[in-house]
Amino acid sequence: MSSWGNSIKISVFGESHGNGIGVVIDGLPAGKKLDMDGIYEQMSRRAPGKDKTATPRLEKDIPEILSGVLNDTTTGAPLCAVIRNTNTRSGDYGNILSSPRPGHADYTGFIRYNGYNDIRGGGHFSGRLTAPVVFAGSVCRQILLEKGIKIAAHISSVGKIKDRPFDPVNIPDDLIERLNKETFSLIDRDKETEMRALIEECRNDLDSIGGTIECAVTGLPAGLGSPMFEGAENVISSIVFGIPAVKGIEFGAGFEASAMRGSENNDEFYYDEDTVKTRTNNHGGILGGITSGMPLIFRTAVKPTPSISKQQNTVDLTEKKDTTLSIHGRHDPCIVPRAVPVVEAAAAIAVLELISR
Amino acid sequence: MSSWGNSIKISVFGESHGNGIGVVIDGLPAGKKLDMDGIYEQMSRRAPGKDKTATPRLEKDIPEILSGVLNDTTTGAPLCAVIRNTNTRSGDYGNILSSPRPGHADYTGFIRYNGYNDIRGGGHFSGRLTAPVVFAGSVCRQILLEKGIKIAAHISSVGKIKDRPFDPVNIPDDLIERLNKETFSLIDRDKETEMRALIEECRNDLDSIGGTIECAVTGLPAGLGSPMFEGAENVISSIVFGIPAVKGIEFGAGFEASAMRGSENNDEFYYDEDTVKTRTNNHGGILGGITSGMPLIFRTAVKPTPSISKQQNTVDLTEKKDTTLSIHGRHDPCIVPRAVPVVEAAAAIAVLELISR
Amino acid sequence: MSSWGNSIKISVFGESHGNGIGVVIDGLPAGKKLDMDGIYEQMSRRAPGKDKTATPRLEKDIPEILSGVLNDTTTGAPLCAVIRNTNTRSGDYGNILSSPRPGHADYTGFIRYNGYNDIRGGGHFSGRLTAPVVFAGSVCRQILLEKGIKIAAHISSVGKIKDRPFDPVNIPDDLIERLNKETFSLIDRDKETEMRALIEECRNDLDSIGGTIECAVTGLPAGLGSPMFEGAENVISSIVFGIPAVKGIEFGAGFEASAMRGSENNDEFYYDEDTVKTRTNNHGGILGGITSGMPLIFRTAVKPTPSISKQQNTVDLTEKKDTTLSIHGRHDPCIVPRAVPVVEAAAAIAVLELISR
Amino acid sequence: MSSWGNSIKISVFGESHGNGIGVVIDGLPAGKKLDMDGIYEQMSRRAPGKDKTATPRLEKDIPEILSGVLNDTTTGAPLCAVIRNTNTRSGDYGNILSSPRPGHADYTGFIRYNGYNDIRGGGHFSGRLTAPVVFAGSVCRQILLEKGIKIAAHISSVGKIKDRPFDPVNIPDDLIERLNKETFSLIDRDKETEMRALIEECRNDLDSIGGTIECAVTGLPAGLGSPMFEGAENVISSIVFGIPAVKGIEFGAGFEASAMRGSENNDEFYYDEDTVKTRTNNHGGILGGITSGMPLIFRTAVKPTPSISKQQNTVDLTEKKDTTLSIHGRHDPCIVPRAVPVVEAAAAIAVLELISR
Repeated sequence: MSSWGNSIKISVFGESHGNGIGVVIDGLPAGKKLDMDGIYEQMSRRAPGKDKTATPRLEKDIPEILSGVLNDTTTGAPLCAVIRNTNTRSGDYGNILSSPRPGHADYTGFIRYNGYNDIRGGGHFSGRLTAPVVFAGSVCRQILLEKGIKIAAHISSVGKIKDRPFDPVNIPDDLIERLNKETFSLIDRDKETEMRALIEECRNDLDSIGGTIECAVTGLPAGLGSPMFEGAENVISSIVFGIPAVKGIEFGAGFEASAMRGSENNDEFYYDEDTVKTRTNNHGGILGGITSGMPLIFRTAVKPTPSISKQQNTVDLTEKKDTTLSIHGRHDPCIVPRAVPVVEAAAAIAVLELISR
Repeated sequence: MSSWGNSIKISVFGESHGNGIGVVIDGLPAGKKLDMDGIYEQMSRRAPGKDKTATPRLEKDIPEILSGVLNDTTTGAPLCAVIRNTNTRSGDYGNILSSPRPGHADYTGFIRYNGYNDIRGGGHFSGRLTAPVVFAGSVCRQILLEKGIKIAAHISSVGKIKDRPFDPVNIPDDLIERLNKETFSLIDRDKETEMRALIEECRNDLDSIGGTIECAVTGLPAGLGSPMFEGAENVISSIVFGIPAVKGIEFGAGFEASAMRGSENNDEFYYDEDTVKTRTNNHGGILGGITSGMPLIFRTAVKPTPSISKQQNTVDLTEKKDTTLSIHGRHDPCIVPRAVPVVEAAAAIAVLELISR
Repeated sequence: MSSWGNSIKISVFGESHGNGIGVVIDGLPAGKKLDMDGIYEQMSRRAPGKDKTATPRLEKDIPEILSGVLNDTTTGAPLCAVIRNTNTRSGDYGNILSSPRPGHADYTGFIRYNGYNDIRGGGHFSGRLTAPVVFAGSVCRQILLEKGIKIAAHISSVGKIKDRPFDPVNIPDDLIERLNKETFSLIDRDKETEMRALIEECRNDLDSIGGTIECAVTGLPAGLGSPMFEGAENVISSIVFGIPAVKGIEFGAGFEASAMRGSENNDEFYYDEDTVKTRTNNHGGILGGITSGMPLIFRTAVKPTPSISKQQNTVDLTEKKDTTLSIHGRHDPCIVPRAVPVVEAAAAIAVLELISR
Repeated sequence: MSSWGNSIKISVFGESHGNGIGVVIDGLPAGKKLDMDGIYEQMSRRAPGKDKTATPRLEKDIPEILSGVLNDTTTGAPLCAVIRNTNTRSGDYGNILSSPRPGHADYTGFIRYNGYNDIRGGGHFSGRLTAPVVFAGSVCRQILLEKGIKIAAHISSVGKIKDRPFDPVNIPDDLIERLNKETFSLIDRDKETEMRALIEECRNDLDSIGGTIECAVTGLPAGLGSPMFEGAENVISSIVFGIPAVKGIEFGAGFEASAMRGSENNDEFYYDEDTVKTRTNNHGGILGGITSGMPLIFRTAVKPTPSISKQQNTVDLTEKKDTTLSIHGRHDPCIVPRAVPVVEAAAAIAVLELISR
């Protein structure tokens, strides 16, 4: 299913080469002024062709809002935004039907839908479907901003090249603002050259490369979320795994915490004037599923783009035999930079859901 | 909320020192013969005191089944199982109310519930609440076994000491059966001495240690799950983060995939007679949210037990000032071994849900 | 499924002749003082044997609270209440397995659960399962009362004998209080003799009789509920049809409105000081799915108890042939009086859900 | 919320005078061939101006399918259909903002959305929003037809003029087919003249009139639905109350059953060859929430159109005083005929949901 949420329900639709893609957002509060330019700016960060590392395919991705907004203000009714599909060259994908691309959903989609799924451009599995997610997230984000809640993510690694992580107890507003404007978001801008070089190297090798994205949410009140199955981690992970290519998520110290002792990992409490804070933030702003008021921090693992131009072994589902495949489409050698605003969007939707419950 | 699921709904209730804990499982198919001894055996693996690394507190944890089972067979009506609380020494927790334990949900629970939550023994946040999860998972597991679906997990690390991982393309039944019986589940049994020594060292240091758990599900058909928000990863992560102390999850190569090239990470397809398989399994049995028929594999990060006896800094919420805290309760220095059957249980519930959708 | 709700989730379990029945209520606000005697009083109104028209079977129905309450105050964790089954005479139902009772769920349950459902006493379909619903409703009701929201229902008809309806624009508190205490709740107490006589006549005829129940909720703020599928009518009806034997529901003028002209049915607005009210209340306090602030009023149709002692034609499912059936159990000739607190309970749960969303 | 369902999720969006309205249907099975002309035919039955009793406003209502369909066949991905809004004359509604129309959602919508809802043409509360419901229902219906499940409704009354009811144990296919084609669906065609005369009389009186709709579903297998809260009655009523103006629903004998004795109301079972049937069908095809295999029959009460041209008393929300209102728009004096395909559509969605669970 491509629907998510309880109090804020999003329903994402569309296939890469169909008539259009979009999203319905149900449950938004009424009377929220939206900054449409701000939304398009976020969508533009995700759009291909905005950054030289990305695919040359141009997407206009200007959404049309069909409902739920009047005079740039939410009406409280479901908001539907549609993005038309144009500039699609289906021929690029002509050989996929019988030969599933390794690492891609071609094979599992074929089984799941008995071969009836629209495989052109990846169909409903396409990364293009993250455009409506960014739209929805940008709407949620503007509503959160009114409450002083801010969200920023950055490329924490490409391959083995790492950006500096967030200081988990102190994430300044100006850093958030800067990251929110970049198409290649880094805390340590000096890493850009090295990362881009690696991406270009992969492109030249007809290959691709993965990476990680770190995301922070600041300004959250303590007390959001619930124990067990509706904790902040459950809610966030259930939407973040909806982003194609995400294969892992960790909160706070995450997997590193598993190698720590309790005395290292426990974050001691102290009073900062009237506010209870922790001196470290290995818990990533979440204890027992509930926010602590410290910055909420998580990292996601993004696998390398499965569509590579190198020849690969696969099967021919029609002939039922092994075969080889060479893909000649337009694919990002690294989708991590463009996935940054998508992760922020997913976080924004999840946080608005947590607040609305 | 402590309810989870759509087609298989579980509702977990109870507080550590209340009258009882338990679970309602709604949506089970009728006519399934349950092996009650098998269920108790799994619960016993989780129970404290079964293994020398665990807390000396004894829990009988014999569940009483109130409904949904007649002649050891499911009736199709909701199954409710209750475990009585006995042998609780509330005095051990007398000083927690005003001084939240670092790394624990004491503080966030206090905020969330305005101080009305039952803090004795961790209340509803207690690890004891995993007992009904293991009960529910054991029921689901027996139903899955009928379909040839098997689940096993092992301690993949304690601190920095690592067990050998599963061979992700070949997980033999006898390994699964062995792991399912152990209270200190390891693929490489030779690691036990070293791991136990580390745990004892932590105990002597009045400290604790974290670890990771790797879980595999075999025998799954291809085609389970959906793209975007109801993929296998979304469904599994949304329940696994309900296990206290879990701070991360990764599927297949997970975070390691983020440092790989596409040509390394992509799992090439081939025909094994009539079945499409992959030669490697970096995708962990899931592509585009949908199962591929290869073993489903995930790892979770378990943080060190927050309750340690070392003195720690914290706050006094009543006096609104900083203070120190020394906990004198009975706590596992490492909950990872006992969390293994809990992770298996969560996986079983999630997989039965995926199949029932 | 026997689970209901989104913000307030209830999960009802149990079979008539199993070990016990009960309910888990998840999502209750923390810190609400519960009047346990008040809860038992409501459960007592539903219990058989409290009123001379009811079945002679005695139910103690004293629930044990396993979790979610400390010092008679909600902790915010799921509240589980269990009622033990005692005094069951399974022999009464010995002939039902092969011969389904007309009008009962015996046949449909047999098909749905492949014959594995517990048929003793109606199993999970038994009217006894309304006891935990009344428990849950009584808890919700006390929480609503703090907000000035009150609920009362009455027997609006037994057979063709009608009670006086509520004055839909003015439902005094003392009437609500009186109705809340009665086991044979009537606005016009003079109808009792006639109604009881009809019920006794049916009992003597080895027959049963249906009726209707009218329910009112006062003190509701305007603005609860949503258009389309989460309107107050949708939410209320989705729980009320969970009460066995309910076959219809109407809000405000309901079916009578269908015979009216717009000029008759439309309720004109006026200002009562600063409050917008309507002079009539054909809309039953709901317009467009959203509460108007006027009393919310609905009526339910309760079919006659299907278990009658008169001989009836049915089938023998084992022998696959037609047969006859005479039931010799203890059955109410009219369940309407005892269903009154059940309808109130369902309304209370639904309204708390609407408020919590 | 304007989202509904679990296995078949529909998300309806749009406002009467916004850019467009539509629906996303998630969870449809893949590979179902859709008869687009058949869908438009059903939508045409609902569209205004098709029948002389309806409003003169012309709606083209030709939906554009953006996703989920390829070569007229479902792909399994969410199906989104959009209908553009054209021919809207917002001036007709200029005076509604401050003066809510009696019987309409103007006032409750104003409170619910703090005055930010789009009031033009009723906004999201408009009857026009039933067009996407009919679209979604028509899709579901074609999928059901493959399984031999058929749905038909008729105008069972306009004011006090009644059509003949369905014979609840025998609903012939040719009757269903005939009703499915009519814009003024009646079992007894002789009632048309009288009903139309009444409607015209109301129009001339600047008034409106209500009615009832009876709906039947044939070909259902026994065993669909669940006891308590996910019974067929719960599921159907929870969607049917999403149709504007519906104020009541009853299944089988419904409210009439409440005046019956058990011996009258109980439907005796018999074997019709190998199939268990009932000789009467007061249970409306549902016992204990589960389908019996007999025709599923329900009736809904539709209140008279609240928008009437007669002068009415109301309030001025801006000036906070009483006032009068005369509406000069284009409104159906009786929406019952056009609501018939909407009720069928809601039934189709609900039944497909029941089957898919």
